[in-house]
Amino acid sequence: MHQNGAADVDVTSLCLAVRCHVRARRHRFPSRASSMANSPTPGTHTHQEDDDRDASGAARALTVGSLNPKVVALADHHLAGRVARRAQNMQEDLESNPASHPFNEIIYCNHSNPQSQGQQPNKFFREVLALCEYPHLLDRSQTSFLFSSDAIARAQDILGLIPGRSTGGYSHCQGIEGLRDAIADGIASRDGLPSYADDIFLTDGAAAPGTLNDTGNDFLPLITVGPLITYSMVLRGATLVPYYLDESKGWRVNISDLKKQLDGARSKGIAVRGLVVVNPGNPTGQVLSEENQCEIVELCKNEGLVLLADEVYQENIYTDQKKFNSFKKVAGSIGHGEGDISLVSFHSVSNGYYGECGRRGGYMEVTGFSSEVRKEVYKVASLSPCSNISGQILMSLVMNPPKVGDESYTSYRAERDGILSSLSRCAEAMVSTFNSLEGMSCSKAEGAISLFPSVRLPPQAISAAEAMNTEPDAFYALRLLESTGIVVVPGSVFGQVPGTWHFRCTILPQEEKIPLIISRFKAFHEAFMEEFRS
Amino acid sequence: MHQNGAADVDVTSLCLAVRCHVRARRHRFPSRASSMANSPTPGTHTHQEDDDRDASGAARALTVGSLNPKVVALADHHLAGRVARRAQNMQEDLESNPASHPFNEIIYCNHSNPQSQGQQPNKFFREVLALCEYPHLLDRSQTSFLFSSDAIARAQDILGLIPGRSTGGYSHCQGIEGLRDAIADGIASRDGLPSYADDIFLTDGAAAPGTLNDTGNDFLPLITVGPLITYSMVLRGATLVPYYLDESKGWRVNISDLKKQLDGARSKGIAVRGLVVVNPGNPTGQVLSEENQCEIVELCKNEGLVLLADEVYQENIYTDQKKFNSFKKVAGSIGHGEGDISLVSFHSVSNGYYGECGRRGGYMEVTGFSSEVRKEVYKVASLSPCSNISGQILMSLVMNPPKVGDESYTSYRAERDGILSSLSRCAEAMVSTFNSLEGMSCSKAEGAISLFPSVRLPPQAISAAEAMNTEPDAFYALRLLESTGIVVVPGSVFGQVPGTWHFRCTILPQEEKIPLIISRFKAFHEAFMEEFRS
Repeated sequence: MHQNGAADVDVTSLCLAVRCHVRARRHRFPSRASSMANSPTPGTHTHQEDDDRDASGAARALTVGSLNPKVVALADHHLAGRVARRAQNMQEDLESNPASHPFNEIIYCNHSNPQSQGQQPNKFFREVLALCEYPHLLDRSQTSFLFSSDAIARAQDILGLIPGRSTGGYSHCQGIEGLRDAIADGIASRDGLPSYADDIFLTDGAAAPGTLNDTGNDFLPLITVGPLITYSMVLRGATLVPYYLDESKGWRVNISDLKKQLDGARSKGIAVRGLVVVNPGNPTGQVLSEENQCEIVELCKNEGLVLLADEVYQENIYTDQKKFNSFKKVAGSIGHGEGDISLVSFHSVSNGYYGECGRRGGYMEVTGFSSEVRKEVYKVASLSPCSNISGQILMSLVMNPPKVGDESYTSYRAERDGILSSLSRCAEAMVSTFNSLEGMSCSKAEGAISLFPSVRLPPQAISAAEAMNTEPDAFYALRLLESTGIVVVPGSVFGQVPGTWHFRCTILPQEEKIPLIISRFKAFHEAFMEEFRS
Repeated sequence: MHQNGAADVDVTSLCLAVRCHVRARRHRFPSRASSMANSPTPGTHTHQEDDDRDASGAARALTVGSLNPKVVALADHHLAGRVARRAQNMQEDLESNPASHPFNEIIYCNHSNPQSQGQQPNKFFREVLALCEYPHLLDRSQTSFLFSSDAIARAQDILGLIPGRSTGGYSHCQGIEGLRDAIADGIASRDGLPSYADDIFLTDGAAAPGTLNDTGNDFLPLITVGPLITYSMVLRGATLVPYYLDESKGWRVNISDLKKQLDGARSKGIAVRGLVVVNPGNPTGQVLSEENQCEIVELCKNEGLVLLADEVYQENIYTDQKKFNSFKKVAGSIGHGEGDISLVSFHSVSNGYYGECGRRGGYMEVTGFSSEVRKEVYKVASLSPCSNISGQILMSLVMNPPKVGDESYTSYRAERDGILSSLSRCAEAMVSTFNSLEGMSCSKAEGAISLFPSVRLPPQAISAAEAMNTEPDAFYALRLLESTGIVVVPGSVFGQVPGTWHFRCTILPQEEKIPLIISRFKAFHEAFMEEFRS
């Protein structure tokens, strides 16, 4: 299957689903008597049938034909919308009539949105954010009963870094320098290599538009596919060159396949500039081996590719056999410095165990660019206002959490370990279920937040899907949904080796629901295979 | 001078200024022994002089030549950088040696960043935000001593609108529906016209990338100029068609000039799609008359232009003679409904008297598009994650502030009226100063947050500027800065009628500084005119 360049596909599909519903009850705003002075007779131009014509028959300002053809060409079904739309309809059915389906709730295994599914935010993080929002609390005696001492001290420190001590001011367009210092320290301590505040660009999340990809048309004809980040690139004129991960080897990056795709693209005149690698992987859940990472670094160095490392799942590791190594650390370990490889590492507050998706905080660490190119990257950043300050603060907390001896350390660790071990247990139970089912196989979840099992679909199921003009994996996902209320994302959304079928299933639902999910899944899959057996 | 499509020029220039300083102390990250297993000899590739070559002489991944030429072509001086950079250097001088300049502080009249200049955030807004950040507070008895009762009630209401009651989840990509309901109610009550949550798209501020302009190349060859929003459009391939406001008529939009520009652009084959109007105006500070707004609406209707109404200063009105009327209300008052005019109204939490720039909250209300075009607008929005939830909440508070009878109403009104009347007094004092100076004239500040006085520069000053290869208004601004520490933005950054010279001066500095600003300004201007008198 294809490497995925962004973690947010399910949000997109959720939006589309909700949208479809909302469209149905939309109205024109009637022009009616207003309270203004000098108001002429109102209401004379409000009735017409043709959406592209006004009352006098003049053309509207815009028609689909006058829009950016790249936008129009993005088909809705690419947005993983169909399954999510159906789920949304069924959710509404259940709300109006709980007996409308053979189950009482929709179970969203397509989201990367843990807090909307009941996960609690980290207490220390939220204490600091609340104090920074309303610094007046720091002057009140009752505050010490409501907040931990290290949260109070941290909020004081952070406010001291901000001109005017207010989260309401614009910051430097790369983010508040003191927060970037804290993040650089966290990176340096993670990697055992120096990191500089000057290389950190704080962003509204790793999938935020307006960062590197804004450098435009020629910059990112990428080797990757994946929903959000890549749609954004396509809209800016980039050509995407997909590559497959090697499922038989635990979703390893197959360098010779990558090289073949690269050479093929270049022979077609595509100037390939960068390689996106997601590690730990989404949707595939693997943690790349250090040796595989070295190969990737060497390839990028030798081929002159910017390595865009999506490292947003760096804390989510579920195996003792592997650990997360940043690409920067790996490059350093084989003697490469800034003169050898151009590297951008992405992180965010959305995707780790803390799951603060709605905060929109993230950073990119930009290293190994020439000073001239670097200046242009900076210029692009300076064309947008700063990222939101709360997101900046939260990103600094993630990279500099409570330490041993701090009042919040014990609760912080307990919350973190509780979430990660729950995710690990969910993953293990689901992997073992999937591997017990006929025709299904699933790699171990080493990290991140989802599984990507393959399903060998019976030929009759494939024919049935084709007869309905549906991708076979979408057909499977829709049947699963109708029968169980479980929502997954068809593998065809991400790309997969032709003739194979997969789905993405997150491990985020609350742990107490896992037995239910497993039993429903088993019953559905057995019945499905029986129905389509030749 | 040209109409300005965005309010944030000074942030950009601030960023550039800081950046220049930071670049000088940037280092390569050395590749050095790492703690990883299997680490080969490190540090062999770190020394080279040529920024675009690596140690082996191979080309770097990117050179300026391989970047998007539209980015490279954006000259730094367009970013209002020169004056701001010099101010930043002088700020550093003063920090290391308070006697280095003939004044002890830099006074930023180029910023739209009030909270960084000491303005306090609104208490009710921040109470609600803090409670939403850390909802655990709502369960504690001490909370009632620290927060007002209506803030507690509002936070409860808002959390009830959010699935999982957490600001950490992604929302619908248009924003949380219940918050959009509150915003639509606020708009409806402002205009006396219906407004629908379905038409509201919550954004990371009015200058956020990734909203309408992302629809791409053909969509927004606009009639406007102005820093942030327009750079963003240019990067996406739009052509900007500038128009001048009529200074002699209080910065009115001159419809016949506009029509001439439009026809001229069309005769060159430019498919003009939209018109940006900023009302109240930035940098010009005018409030458009209702009659002028009617003319603009009719022009857009007749010429098939989308009217992009930047209405971010709608609360900042300093005159009893005029009031803010939204373009939607004006269109309705002359009988136009959704079938007649395509209209996008922008608002944000940054630009009103509350000045919450760092929160990145905003909305656009999108009306009058055909359902097909509307679907494409939605598609573009769905390609980005939601805007940050705190910003969404704050936008809803701005549009639905405390009402008569609420505990916070009195303090809310006092804070608001205090800020607005202080701004009004500052503006009046500065306008009257500018009008008292030789060769200078300044329109009354009717609204928004800045003045745009014209200066009739002596021919010898113009020659001196030309000899230094500098725009005459930038020359004036630089001399002002060197002599007084006051930072303004040269008019050439925004565009102005050839042969005229202006500067933008915000009215945001704390009121107690105004007498100092005025006396320094007077002394400087008199000396300047004397120096360059023929």
